[in-house]
Amino acid sequence: MIKVGIVGGTGYTGVELLRLLANHPEVSVEVITSRSEEGMRVDDMYPNLRGHYDLQFTVPNVTTLAQCDVVFFATPHGVAMKMAPELVEQGVRVIDLGADFRIKDLELWSKWYGMEHTSPALAAQAVYGLPEVNRVAIKDARMVACPGCYPTATQLGFLPLVENGLIDHRRLIADVKSGVSGAGRGANVGSLLCESSESMKAYGVAGHRHLPEVKQGLSEAAGRPVGLTFVPHLTPMIRGIHATLYGILKDPVDGLQALFEERYANEPFVDVMPAGSHPETRSVKGANMCRLSVFRPQNDDTVVVLSVIDNLVKGAAGQAIQNMNIMFGFDETEGLRHAGMLP
Amino acid sequence: MIKVGIVGGTGYTGVELLRLLANHPEVSVEVITSRSEEGMRVDDMYPNLRGHYDLQFTVPNVTTLAQCDVVFFATPHGVAMKMAPELVEQGVRVIDLGADFRIKDLELWSKWYGMEHTSPALAAQAVYGLPEVNRVAIKDARMVACPGCYPTATQLGFLPLVENGLIDHRRLIADVKSGVSGAGRGANVGSLLCESSESMKAYGVAGHRHLPEVKQGLSEAAGRPVGLTFVPHLTPMIRGIHATLYGILKDPVDGLQALFEERYANEPFVDVMPAGSHPETRSVKGANMCRLSVFRPQNDDTVVVLSVIDNLVKGAAGQAIQNMNIMFGFDETEGLRHAGMLP
Amino acid sequence: MIKVGIVGGTGYTGVELLRLLANHPEVSVEVITSRSEEGMRVDDMYPNLRGHYDLQFTVPNVTTLAQCDVVFFATPHGVAMKMAPELVEQGVRVIDLGADFRIKDLELWSKWYGMEHTSPALAAQAVYGLPEVNRVAIKDARMVACPGCYPTATQLGFLPLVENGLIDHRRLIADVKSGVSGAGRGANVGSLLCESSESMKAYGVAGHRHLPEVKQGLSEAAGRPVGLTFVPHLTPMIRGIHATLYGILKDPVDGLQALFEERYANEPFVDVMPAGSHPETRSVKGANMCRLSVFRPQNDDTVVVLSVIDNLVKGAAGQAIQNMNIMFGFDETEGLRHAGMLP
Amino acid sequence: MIKVGIVGGTGYTGVELLRLLANHPEVSVEVITSRSEEGMRVDDMYPNLRGHYDLQFTVPNVTTLAQCDVVFFATPHGVAMKMAPELVEQGVRVIDLGADFRIKDLELWSKWYGMEHTSPALAAQAVYGLPEVNRVAIKDARMVACPGCYPTATQLGFLPLVENGLIDHRRLIADVKSGVSGAGRGANVGSLLCESSESMKAYGVAGHRHLPEVKQGLSEAAGRPVGLTFVPHLTPMIRGIHATLYGILKDPVDGLQALFEERYANEPFVDVMPAGSHPETRSVKGANMCRLSVFRPQNDDTVVVLSVIDNLVKGAAGQAIQNMNIMFGFDETEGLRHAGMLP
Repeated sequence: MIKVGIVGGTGYTGVELLRLLANHPEVSVEVITSRSEEGMRVDDMYPNLRGHYDLQFTVPNVTTLAQCDVVFFATPHGVAMKMAPELVEQGVRVIDLGADFRIKDLELWSKWYGMEHTSPALAAQAVYGLPEVNRVAIKDARMVACPGCYPTATQLGFLPLVENGLIDHRRLIADVKSGVSGAGRGANVGSLLCESSESMKAYGVAGHRHLPEVKQGLSEAAGRPVGLTFVPHLTPMIRGIHATLYGILKDPVDGLQALFEERYANEPFVDVMPAGSHPETRSVKGANMCRLSVFRPQNDDTVVVLSVIDNLVKGAAGQAIQNMNIMFGFDETEGLRHAGMLP
Repeated sequence: MIKVGIVGGTGYTGVELLRLLANHPEVSVEVITSRSEEGMRVDDMYPNLRGHYDLQFTVPNVTTLAQCDVVFFATPHGVAMKMAPELVEQGVRVIDLGADFRIKDLELWSKWYGMEHTSPALAAQAVYGLPEVNRVAIKDARMVACPGCYPTATQLGFLPLVENGLIDHRRLIADVKSGVSGAGRGANVGSLLCESSESMKAYGVAGHRHLPEVKQGLSEAAGRPVGLTFVPHLTPMIRGIHATLYGILKDPVDGLQALFEERYANEPFVDVMPAGSHPETRSVKGANMCRLSVFRPQNDDTVVVLSVIDNLVKGAAGQAIQNMNIMFGFDETEGLRHAGMLP
Repeated sequence: MIKVGIVGGTGYTGVELLRLLANHPEVSVEVITSRSEEGMRVDDMYPNLRGHYDLQFTVPNVTTLAQCDVVFFATPHGVAMKMAPELVEQGVRVIDLGADFRIKDLELWSKWYGMEHTSPALAAQAVYGLPEVNRVAIKDARMVACPGCYPTATQLGFLPLVENGLIDHRRLIADVKSGVSGAGRGANVGSLLCESSESMKAYGVAGHRHLPEVKQGLSEAAGRPVGLTFVPHLTPMIRGIHATLYGILKDPVDGLQALFEERYANEPFVDVMPAGSHPETRSVKGANMCRLSVFRPQNDDTVVVLSVIDNLVKGAAGQAIQNMNIMFGFDETEGLRHAGMLP
Repeated sequence: MIKVGIVGGTGYTGVELLRLLANHPEVSVEVITSRSEEGMRVDDMYPNLRGHYDLQFTVPNVTTLAQCDVVFFATPHGVAMKMAPELVEQGVRVIDLGADFRIKDLELWSKWYGMEHTSPALAAQAVYGLPEVNRVAIKDARMVACPGCYPTATQLGFLPLVENGLIDHRRLIADVKSGVSGAGRGANVGSLLCESSESMKAYGVAGHRHLPEVKQGLSEAAGRPVGLTFVPHLTPMIRGIHATLYGILKDPVDGLQALFEERYANEPFVDVMPAGSHPETRSVKGANMCRLSVFRPQNDDTVVVLSVIDNLVKGAAGQAIQNMNIMFGFDETEGLRHAGMLP
């Protein structure tokens, strides 16, 4: 039984961590912090958790958090880089669901996130927490940077193609669609039901913060810098990401289906669908799973990959727990074996 | 480990049984039937179950089903009453999620369901599966009739008032709102997204089949026939029932909050919210839970009870499993302890 | 051609006024104000209006507004009562879509709205803008107080019963359901898609500001104070109100259908549906219409009325324009003749 | 005043024609047909039309239809090609909202639609009803084939680039997202609210019937055959198409914004948004409008065009009426000038 702390527990990734950890037999959540909701019971804010937790939100405090075995940061960028170094120094292992430690090039990070990075040393040793790529390194990591939601869906879809050099690395296109929970629980007009339901729109076409993260991951996989056009869309639903990925095959190639199946044969949380399937985001609702399928329409040289996840689970809280399981030697699927909720 | 069969596995209560039973440590689903989808893999129809089941739909067959310890009927009315008697005779315990065994007065049943009842003997011994009322009888029942979704939410909300004779029994009003999954997975125009989203409507105001069921239950609790106006509404969401219940207090009474809390103090799946709370259906999404609150607006003599459930869980599949747990001596909460999914 | 000003044009009733007035042949919108968005083009904020307006938001200013023939206030309570008196003095006719002038008893108003009323003189001469009750008085009014959305649906549904003394006036129940746009365009967490979609909840059961307004209107119609239980619900859709109204018939009465049809025979914007119909909110989406039906379930003594409107049209902007048409001698249906948008 | 007939009036394009034509001053709808609903009043099926039409559905009959000046076919493919020739022969002008006359290569048509074309002569003279390309030919056409919804959004977005030869014509990608009303009012399980809301999925990736139609239009514009990858997605909303279009610029080019603005400067129903805008489908909800914006992310050689329409209006009924206006010499915007409904 390990002790868990959560910094920034009032957002959607926070409550999702709590929901998933409630059924994890190896952990006990001891601390959950929120500056704005200090003293409030967790289940007053999130009545779905009534009967599951007796906790109150407390102000984040390193002394208290240092008594945990692992601390999750479910915070906006800029928070973890300030508190994590001291925790790691005191022997706590840290899993950041935010963006502070995802990008290795800190100048690039600063450009996209608009602030100086205050913790370059820890950033240097942080491990990018995509188990399907970095499982071994995650095992011993002190600091794990969980991938963003778009980057998870996009990388898992492109990896088999890029790792094998099958597509023109200069011309990747990711047309990605996210449910509104990806925008968080902040009180923004754009996330109101009356603004975001019954409508579809692209946003950030000129540039989105997940672009450099995806490029970094795919460039590593490709062994050289990739070119990527990345267009996110706000989709009128609560949860789910659907990535539609386009690449140009260098050579006419058969066996894409087998390639994908082999790549992920031993992955518990990547499911390559039967040929011709169209994965639906609802098939992974609430579940730590990425479902993929691959097409070559009209047997032409364009390859299309469909990749779906629940942005709050495999795209955030579930993947964080998967990382924790790896780090602490638990069964990687512990607490994450439930099926998606359909309908 | 008991063997489970499911008759009528293609509907929403069927897939919900499968989702919930996938994590139940004491059961193994051995048979799942569907006339229309014979031979289809369960996870081809419901991709959320990929990795959880290896089953195919088979044509319902008493010989095969008789090898199960318990058989769930997730079928429209008229099916269970034909197959259940033979199964019960062969020692199988049966839990019907449909309507065949809910109403004791079979003439009344015939009037509302438009057919003769073919199994009056079994109907006579069937136990109405509302554990909060009938737990003891359920334990030894061969045949359990699971309550309908509206009746579960409505009865749990009215029971403390009616059992104690606090409200005028002739003038109960239940204004109930259901998500569209209550209408099932049948291809009806009225359940299309384009017909039922972005709209609200009442239906069956002149008479709905759940009316006599609720009246039966509340009349038993009251010790005399109750009068009930029951108005169901179709609400633009997938899951959830919100029952808003109105009664006229016979005497000015304090302590309604305490009354409700005491009535359900030992019930694992009924949660009386703090005074002044407004339960949301999403707080029970996917969970086997009924959340209640009680009000006396303006300290007048009208009492208002708010009662929410997930129609597919506490209103169907979850309650069926709760009944199974009681019948087989498992912990009543086995397989049903997870929190609702929010957001 | 009259000159129109709109104070508070950034909210949903503001944009709805603009949408509807764009096709009104007798008006020209000359001024639209917003303190927060000064200088912004109206169609930058609301791209659906591109090509329809050339206006920018300006800071509200009495001198400018005084050049209009009519000024609409689409503002939170507390704004109109400060600016309207001076405008009325200068000969401008004012239509308030907010709550400042709806309640005649200003002490009661203060109790529910939490502030002193600063304009009692104008409040005394304000006409309650429900044309189906006050058409004659509206014609010459300098100041019209448009009814709230819930009050419109509730009063139109109860009026035929209450005016004729057919139901027990002490025991009216209004179970009302509103789309989320009723909560306005403010950045509130509770109105986020992720908080309000896929869920149903009641709110304000202990007391809602529309309760005294409805009681005032129905008491006038009844000729004595009515007793009302009023329970509003937040419904996961953008637009629409569905009021389900309950009354106890004093005597067994036939001919309720005829009574309703006669009451509204000459009303262009109240449609009594054929007996047995269940009006859907989507049938009035975008249209200035109230659709009603009336039931006596099981021929018992409870009468149920179903009443639907679009909260932004017949519940706000459309009704305001209907009032304007009456005040300026235009055809009452001018600019309001389009059908609801379905699907 | 011209006489209008509508064949196949029970679907969503049928009711949308009725909604829009109700306010058109130059037309009178005289006949509306439906085999399945013969004798039913139009406003019994579509209560939003109560007060607007007195019509009943009749069985389609050439004699009756021949008394109309124009007949719209709002029918599945295969219907118009059987009835239209005789109507055209009798001097009726026909506008087909279905697919029968869209594709010039009838062998190709047969391959995609799975039946022989029974009216090749009329197909040869049919004019493709995209006014932004074919306005002059439409004016005198006897037979107009209205473009499909996806093809309208896709072609309008690509046209300025393709007509000017700016992008690699072999590598067009259209990632298109449609609301569920695009699937029609048929009782299909896939279109149920419980199947299609709260989820996103691609479909028909291997091949969709709108692919050859788009290729035909863009090939004509390019002056040579284009290569197109076309991936449609089902989006959880009622109305709206969002096309996200990708092309590879042959040369680094400035002035794409100006190019788009000039191309559509005189088009009443194409709105090029200011640079940097992201059009939302809700900005065109219910309106006959296509909103476009164009991007060159990171100033790279990939151009991204965003194109939104309401699939039932500019993608079907509205465009059909626009064609009718052109054919009969009415103002092209008659009956189509209203703003989109937002929120």
